[in-house]
Amino acid sequence: MLRLPLNHCRVCGTAVAYRLPDDGDTKERAVCPACNTVHYENPLNVVGTVPSWGEDGAQVLLCKRNIEPRRGKWTLPAGFMELGETTSQGAARETDEEAGAQYEMLGLFTVMNVVRVGQVHMYYRARLLSAEFNPGYETMEARLFTEAEIPWDEIAFKTVKQTLEQYFEDRRKGAYGIHTFDIE
Amino acid sequence: MLRLPLNHCRVCGTAVAYRLPDDGDTKERAVCPACNTVHYENPLNVVGTVPSWGEDGAQVLLCKRNIEPRRGKWTLPAGFMELGETTSQGAARETDEEAGAQYEMLGLFTVMNVVRVGQVHMYYRARLLSAEFNPGYETMEARLFTEAEIPWDEIAFKTVKQTLEQYFEDRRKGAYGIHTFDIE
Repeated sequence: MLRLPLNHCRVCGTAVAYRLPDDGDTKERAVCPACNTVHYENPLNVVGTVPSWGEDGAQVLLCKRNIEPRRGKWTLPAGFMELGETTSQGAARETDEEAGAQYEMLGLFTVMNVVRVGQVHMYYRARLLSAEFNPGYETMEARLFTEAEIPWDEIAFKTVKQTLEQYFEDRRKGAYGIHTFDIE
Repeated sequence: MLRLPLNHCRVCGTAVAYRLPDDGDTKERAVCPACNTVHYENPLNVVGTVPSWGEDGAQVLLCKRNIEPRRGKWTLPAGFMELGETTSQGAARETDEEAGAQYEMLGLFTVMNVVRVGQVHMYYRARLLSAEFNPGYETMEARLFTEAEIPWDEIAFKTVKQTLEQYFEDRRKGAYGIHTFDIE
């Protein structure tokens, strides 16, 4: 994600100056010369699910993106975490919005740093309760894939590919863990 | 943490209006009437460590806070994750800044949602390589505590208490997991 330019103070609208704040901070920040507000920019969380279907979780739900970036590529349901929700609630909300799926939330599965874009991605496992989907406007198509059917070259994001690979690896082992990765 | 008022567009400085954006979003956002920038506000990550000392990790390092909030209370080294670093690197940086400790980073240990303040807290385990500390200005005192010595009523934050309790529980079991909690 591109960060918006930070040119003006969000509190009073004055043009900011980039400098070290006066509080001992060691990084340059956007500081307002009028009201002295210091503006911090921090990583964002992306939260989503690995919705699986069938007694043995042999199929997973992927969504074909109808929006940029990566329009037409396949993804797991995921999006930016919002204020007022937990990581799990945000992951569930995105699963509702992007897939219109019925599911039961399970445990945290992957935690991935994507430093290049200032994001942390967290995926939860989810158990689908129906194989009928009702995707929103962000999704062209939502459907189930076995491991062999997954369009590996048409996956939208590295974090999704990494999470899917780990899912099927854990499935073969018969035990799902919590996995951390740093993504280039 | 209090969020700063969002009154003005960060790009052009115009006063924003709070309304539904035109892109199908279902939440009110601060939208700039001049340049159409939509401003999102999202949760922040707080990252830190549980630095333990001794062959069996019987002692943990706590820091007495020299800054508000909770000045004078005890905490694990932790702070806001910055752009340009992973969760683990951020946790290490805070351990350097607040405790001046020498340590080896270990695995992710707790992931905690604090919805009330719009934060996700993540703690990593760390193995101290020395019992000498050189804390920065944010810390009055850095010292080691056994479980019995921990000032449970003087712990700065619920997330720190939860993480410490889990640490000693896992230690008794002889196996450290990754734990998720929602904190009221």
